[in-house]
Amino acid sequence: MNSTDRIFLPKGFQFSAVTAGIKASGRPDLALIAAGPSTQAAAVFTKNLVVAAPLEVARTSLESTGGRVRAVVVNSGNANCATGPAGLRGCKEVCVQMGKLLKVKAAEVFPSSTGIIGVPFPTEKVVSYLQALLAGAGSSIDDFRRFANAILTTDTRAKVASAALPSVSACVTGVAKGSGMIHPQLATMLVYVMTDVAASATELHQSLREACDESFNVISVDGDTSTNDTVLLLASGESGIRLRVVRNEFRAALSEVCRSLAHQIVSDGEGVQHVIRLHVEEAKTRTEALQIARSIAHSLLVKTAWAGADPNWGRILAAAGRSGVRLDPKKISVVIGDQTVCKASVACDFDARRAHNHLSQPECSIRVRLGRGKAAIEFLTTDLTSDYVRINADYST
Amino acid sequence: MNSTDRIFLPKGFQFSAVTAGIKASGRPDLALIAAGPSTQAAAVFTKNLVVAAPLEVARTSLESTGGRVRAVVVNSGNANCATGPAGLRGCKEVCVQMGKLLKVKAAEVFPSSTGIIGVPFPTEKVVSYLQALLAGAGSSIDDFRRFANAILTTDTRAKVASAALPSVSACVTGVAKGSGMIHPQLATMLVYVMTDVAASATELHQSLREACDESFNVISVDGDTSTNDTVLLLASGESGIRLRVVRNEFRAALSEVCRSLAHQIVSDGEGVQHVIRLHVEEAKTRTEALQIARSIAHSLLVKTAWAGADPNWGRILAAAGRSGVRLDPKKISVVIGDQTVCKASVACDFDARRAHNHLSQPECSIRVRLGRGKAAIEFLTTDLTSDYVRINADYST
Repeated sequence: MNSTDRIFLPKGFQFSAVTAGIKASGRPDLALIAAGPSTQAAAVFTKNLVVAAPLEVARTSLESTGGRVRAVVVNSGNANCATGPAGLRGCKEVCVQMGKLLKVKAAEVFPSSTGIIGVPFPTEKVVSYLQALLAGAGSSIDDFRRFANAILTTDTRAKVASAALPSVSACVTGVAKGSGMIHPQLATMLVYVMTDVAASATELHQSLREACDESFNVISVDGDTSTNDTVLLLASGESGIRLRVVRNEFRAALSEVCRSLAHQIVSDGEGVQHVIRLHVEEAKTRTEALQIARSIAHSLLVKTAWAGADPNWGRILAAAGRSGVRLDPKKISVVIGDQTVCKASVACDFDARRAHNHLSQPECSIRVRLGRGKAAIEFLTTDLTSDYVRINADYST
Repeated sequence: MNSTDRIFLPKGFQFSAVTAGIKASGRPDLALIAAGPSTQAAAVFTKNLVVAAPLEVARTSLESTGGRVRAVVVNSGNANCATGPAGLRGCKEVCVQMGKLLKVKAAEVFPSSTGIIGVPFPTEKVVSYLQALLAGAGSSIDDFRRFANAILTTDTRAKVASAALPSVSACVTGVAKGSGMIHPQLATMLVYVMTDVAASATELHQSLREACDESFNVISVDGDTSTNDTVLLLASGESGIRLRVVRNEFRAALSEVCRSLAHQIVSDGEGVQHVIRLHVEEAKTRTEALQIARSIAHSLLVKTAWAGADPNWGRILAAAGRSGVRLDPKKISVVIGDQTVCKASVACDFDARRAHNHLSQPECSIRVRLGRGKAAIEFLTTDLTSDYVRINADYST
C-alpha cells in the first residue's frame, strides 16, 4: 500500500483552516485540529537551543496534563521565535481563548507556529479568528486537506500520509510542512500524526521516538536545524483498539507514515532537483554511519556536484574524511547507481555517462561502503541549486 | 604598512613556473621554489583523514630530514588524491628526479598538488618538465609572480603578501592559492611563506601554528575541508639574523602575512559577493566562540541571506542555537554594522534600509554577543551565491 494514495481519517478528529491575514500572500494561515475527550499525545521538539514560544508553552502544557491534548492551533507566516515575553504571552493567550471556546483547559491546547523569525507575534489577529476557525471544523477529507494546506510556508505542496492497520479497523494518518531549514535533530518542522488507536502518552512517546529515528532524523535539505521543529502524535482511542494489542502493526503503520512524510519533505525541499538516497554501509555503528551521512549531505561541494549530476566521487570521499569518524580511507568504496566508481579509495574504470544519467534522475542512489563493520543507514538528502540560493537570498525585511 | 602593497623578496629563494599540460586550459601548472642550503622548514597539513599523496610524502620527508627543504615542487590541475599506490609512486618519483637535478636528497624536495581528486597523476608529464622548470628559475619579482600564478586553480587572482621586519634587514613573504573547498582545519589549500631569518624547524613550527590559529583557522568559504591543505614556512637564514633575536617582530610579520593571505583567499572565494567579518564576542572561551562562528558561517540560510544583503538576524540566532555550545538564548545580541538589531534575543527597532546598505558593501561586519564571558574571535567568511552553485555544478568528468 502506498501511504499517499489513499487517506484514512482516524475517528475522533476534526479539522479547520481560515485566513487570518498573517501571511502577506492572503493564503490560509491559521489551522485547527480538534481532538476527542480521550486523546493522549506525545511530542518531540527541536534540539536547537533557540526555541520558539509555542514550543516552550507546548512542552510545559504536555507535562502538566500528562499528555492530554484536545486541540492543536497552528499558524503559518510567523514563527513566534525571538519575540521575547510578548511572544510568550501571545502564545498563551491563544491557548486560553481556544480553551474557553472548547471548554477545555488552556494546557490542553497545543500551539504551533511556523514562518519568519523575529517578527512580533500578531496575537490579537490570531485570537479574533479563533471562533471562525472552530465554527468551520469538520471531519471530511476536504477539511483535512484544508488543514494540510494552511500550515505550509515555502512548501510547494501539501504533505500527507496514511496507513490502515491490516487486522483491525484503525489507522494512522499524518500531515507535515517543511521545505527549508530542514536538518531535523529528533524532529522536523511541523508534523502531526493522528491515530484512533487507544494508547497512553508513554506508549505513544516510545513509538514516536522509534519512528522518528528512521524517518525525520535521517533527512537533510540544508543542514539548518529549525527553532520550531515539532512532531506531535495524537491518539483519540475512538477505534476502541488498544495499542498493546496491535503493537507490531501499529509501529509498522506509524513508521510507514513518518517515512512517507519525511520523503515528501525532502522531495519538496527548496530548489531541489534531485533526491539522493545516500546509503552509508559497512560502518561499525549506526551512529557513525549517521555522522558520515550528515557530513556528506552537508557538503556544499557534494551538493552542488549533485545539482550538475556530476559523479565527482572525490568530493564524497573528502566529505567522509572530515566527518570526525576515525575511518580508514583506504577501505572506502563508492557506488553510484549500479556502478562502483571508487574502490579502496582509488578510481575504478566506470562509465561516466551512465553515472551522469543515473544522477540526472529525480531520485538516485549512492552507496558509501566503509569496510569497518555491519551497520548501515539510509539517509535522504538533496542537491543544492541556484534556485535554493534565489529562494533564500530574496530580501525579506 | 599594507602587506600586499609591496613585495619584499627574502634572500635565498628562486622561483619558476612552466606549462606541463596538466590543466586543460593550457595555463602554467608546474611551479618551483628552490631554497638555499641552510633552509629550515615547518608545515601544517589538513586534518581531513582522506589526504593526498604529496601530503603523505611531505610529512614523512620532513620527519626524516628534521625539517630540511631545498625545493618545493607544486602542480595544479591534479590533486594526486585518491590515486592509490600509483599516485604515491608518482609523487615520490617527482621528488627523486628533482633531487637528482638539484643534487639534493629526494626527501629535501617538498611536493604539493592541487586540482581534481581521483584522476590518475600524470607522473611522466611532470617529470619530463622538471629540467625546464629548474632552468627557468630566478629571484626577481617577476619570477615570484610566475610561481604565484602557476599554483592557482579556480582562483581568479594570485594571492601574495609581504612584510619587512622593522629593525633588521629581513622579511617574511607568502604566496597562497585557494578559492573553494575552504574550511581549513589548521591549514588552508596551499600556502608557502618564506623568510630569510635563520631559525630551527622547531622555532618555525611554533611560530607557524600561532600564526595559523589567527589566520587560516578562522576563515571559511564553504565549510569543506580539503584533502590537500598545506601551509609551509621556509626560512633560508640568509639574512644572518637569528629568529630568537627578533622574535616579536618576526611573529608580527608572519601574522600579518598569514592574515593578509587568509583575507585574500576569502575575498576570492568562489562566487563571493560579500566578505563578512563575523565577530563572536562575550564568549566563555575562544574555542566556543570559534564553534559558534563556524556554525553561523556554515549555515546555508545565513549565507544565502547575506547574498541578498538581508539583515535576517533570526537565521543567525538559529545557527548559534544549534552550534552545540550550551548558550543562553535570552542573552544573545546581534549588531549589523553600527546598529543593534536584536537584543536579548528580541527584535530591536532598527533601520532595515541602513542594515541592508551595510550588508550590500563588498565587506561588512556582524557582531554576535553571547553575554557569557570575555573571549572573542573575528572570523572571515562569505555569502553563498548562485555563482558558487554554477561554478561547482558544472559537469566535470
